[in-house]
Amino acid sequence: MSNPKPLPFSEATVRAVAEDFPTPFYLYNEKGIRESCRSLNSAFSWSDGFRNYFAVKATPNPHIMSIVKEESLGADCSSRAELMLAEKIGLRGEQVMFTSNNTPVFEFQAAKDLGAVLNLDDITHIDFVDQNLGLPELVSFRYNPGSAREGNVIIGKPEEAKYGFTEDQLFEGYRTLKERGVRRFGLHTMVASNELDGSFFVETARMLFDLAARILQQLDVRIEFVNLGGGIGIPYRPEDKAVDLKAVGDRIHSLYDEMIVPAGLDPLRVVLENGRMITGPHGYLVTRCIHHKQIYRNYVGVDASMANLMRPGIYGAYHHITVLGKEDAPHNKVVDVVGSLCENNDKFAIGRALPEIDRGDLLVIHDAGAHGHAMGFQYNGKLRSAELLLQENGDVKQIRRAETYDDYFATLDFAEFD
Amino acid sequence: MSNPKPLPFSEATVRAVAEDFPTPFYLYNEKGIRESCRSLNSAFSWSDGFRNYFAVKATPNPHIMSIVKEESLGADCSSRAELMLAEKIGLRGEQVMFTSNNTPVFEFQAAKDLGAVLNLDDITHIDFVDQNLGLPELVSFRYNPGSAREGNVIIGKPEEAKYGFTEDQLFEGYRTLKERGVRRFGLHTMVASNELDGSFFVETARMLFDLAARILQQLDVRIEFVNLGGGIGIPYRPEDKAVDLKAVGDRIHSLYDEMIVPAGLDPLRVVLENGRMITGPHGYLVTRCIHHKQIYRNYVGVDASMANLMRPGIYGAYHHITVLGKEDAPHNKVVDVVGSLCENNDKFAIGRALPEIDRGDLLVIHDAGAHGHAMGFQYNGKLRSAELLLQENGDVKQIRRAETYDDYFATLDFAEFD
Repeated sequence: MSNPKPLPFSEATVRAVAEDFPTPFYLYNEKGIRESCRSLNSAFSWSDGFRNYFAVKATPNPHIMSIVKEESLGADCSSRAELMLAEKIGLRGEQVMFTSNNTPVFEFQAAKDLGAVLNLDDITHIDFVDQNLGLPELVSFRYNPGSAREGNVIIGKPEEAKYGFTEDQLFEGYRTLKERGVRRFGLHTMVASNELDGSFFVETARMLFDLAARILQQLDVRIEFVNLGGGIGIPYRPEDKAVDLKAVGDRIHSLYDEMIVPAGLDPLRVVLENGRMITGPHGYLVTRCIHHKQIYRNYVGVDASMANLMRPGIYGAYHHITVLGKEDAPHNKVVDVVGSLCENNDKFAIGRALPEIDRGDLLVIHDAGAHGHAMGFQYNGKLRSAELLLQENGDVKQIRRAETYDDYFATLDFAEFD
Repeated sequence: MSNPKPLPFSEATVRAVAEDFPTPFYLYNEKGIRESCRSLNSAFSWSDGFRNYFAVKATPNPHIMSIVKEESLGADCSSRAELMLAEKIGLRGEQVMFTSNNTPVFEFQAAKDLGAVLNLDDITHIDFVDQNLGLPELVSFRYNPGSAREGNVIIGKPEEAKYGFTEDQLFEGYRTLKERGVRRFGLHTMVASNELDGSFFVETARMLFDLAARILQQLDVRIEFVNLGGGIGIPYRPEDKAVDLKAVGDRIHSLYDEMIVPAGLDPLRVVLENGRMITGPHGYLVTRCIHHKQIYRNYVGVDASMANLMRPGIYGAYHHITVLGKEDAPHNKVVDVVGSLCENNDKFAIGRALPEIDRGDLLVIHDAGAHGHAMGFQYNGKLRSAELLLQENGDVKQIRRAETYDDYFATLDFAEFD
């Protein structure tokens, strides 16, 4: 049985890296990341000023962010730390979107200092920003359609989500901005996460295009960009099909011609804020089999744990696993692949058919490039692993060192125990 | 309406701390922690050599561990970092139990170096330890009863859990140990987590007492301690009732007299490994209201997030909330209390009736002393908060500083971006 999700690097490459760096480690594929950026840019090349603001939370590593910056992406930041990362790699001004919620003053201040686009989550934030730091020239609002929109399976029902303005609040909000002298306006929503049905994004465009047209008509407020949010999913399972970006781009182009041009809103910039689709498929968690266990089920124990990758444990998420060098061996052993955390759900796979695995074998866990290392914790005293980058020239570069025990103890003072 | 879960410190104390330390912070109550230790010790005072090994993973702070050590508790460690913490506060030898699973060599080595009791999770670990570091004089096994036992709601079905030996493996394992010259033996299980029904622990004692008797009879292997595990729950909800420790201790005492004495196993040490019941009720997350939001639901935004306390977000766990100074105000506002993470489930309470909350009010989140700070992550670039201890003498001591951005960036090298 051939591997339905082939690796983008050779077995020898991974083995060589695993000799130099102790497992587990993350390995990112620069070429793949660049290709994802280019596919998305190409699908929206019809749109003047199109930009995908890379959702930094997915992979908050400056070396990765720097690659996507070279591909003309911006940064979507949700906190001061993420803004600092953007600044460190040379992003500033409207290359940065600040989309946060329940935001404290110091984070708004950091965003304003960087000149980032302020995308406000709540109508009360107009006063909050105005009083604490002053409203900037350009302000965007996040729209929450509530029951007017279904949301997708992952993100849940919009009316139960804590984000955004209602429609009434949007109109009231833009009116207030205008009265207070704000001159430039944006409109944003985010109603999907990890969605593979391209129609979802087309419908989101329709919703925002319609809103932008009505806002112009009713308030004489001209929205200059709509941010359709992120949420483009990736095919975690072998049978999943990636979103056809070109088709989505084309359909949104048609809607643009049908709705935006006649409304007199052209040119209107279309922007996105995808993270997962940019880095998700191009990051791999490489781990080593250290134990076998046979009790009421069969277990393969690896040296990674939920501390390295939480998604299977907390969401039950599927991540494909390739046993290096055994891609073509019969996948006839049904096992749970587990880490060493004292947590029942510390399992990377449950009842998965894999080839016979020997102690020392390398397991490559796919699609870990987004919301992987970034969500790691240190529960049970576990240390987070290194991140490595397979560069386009074939060299492997360490882009984040593994944590040490000194890191783990950094916030503690042991003086009284000496 | 009076607060059904009164705080152990005055409003003035918390306000004074909140002036000195930026919210959010953890505040632990030394007196309460000591009382929990003493209640448990007292309930088992009939048992010679009784010890609760405090589950370090619950609250891996050396200052807390040092308090429980003064109360004669040991440490239950699951990793090298936890063993290092135990060593730093002066615990060693059989004051430390090493209960891990899918364990790498270096962690077994650290445990052996400290003289900790090795509690093996799997039959293959006998050879693994023997070959890699040699078997110590005393070895314990973790038993997984499989379908012979129900498990409790939280920990799930034992036959689906990755832990422990089957019964057949136990007998085979002790036989092997004996052949290889091991002279001292322990027996452990852990089938409950956060269980409030005291009978559960009595039944676990019955199960292990019966096993120990049969092991003596069939193998002439004398178990010297049974570790009944941890899992004593705490009353998170106001209507929950704490476990009657004295009653549980007495019932286990009776079983001991009925089963262990006639089996010729007396003296058999009874030990436990509770973490949550020791620190859980005595740690509070103090956070401040920074925003209100009214869309399809009513929200109170606080300056803590899932990064500080994950249990509500990932388990839907209930944590009681006291609005400081408003304990007696009518609780007639139904709100979601939310953090600032870009995660839908970053909510500390959903549809909770609370008093009218003003911006700046302090909210005290109860029962956060175990698996609280310890499970924190840095997702969205959030920093983990400080831990403070209200000492018995009334002074407040910082026992862990808050993280800084330098901590967040510690594993990154920005040289190439300068």
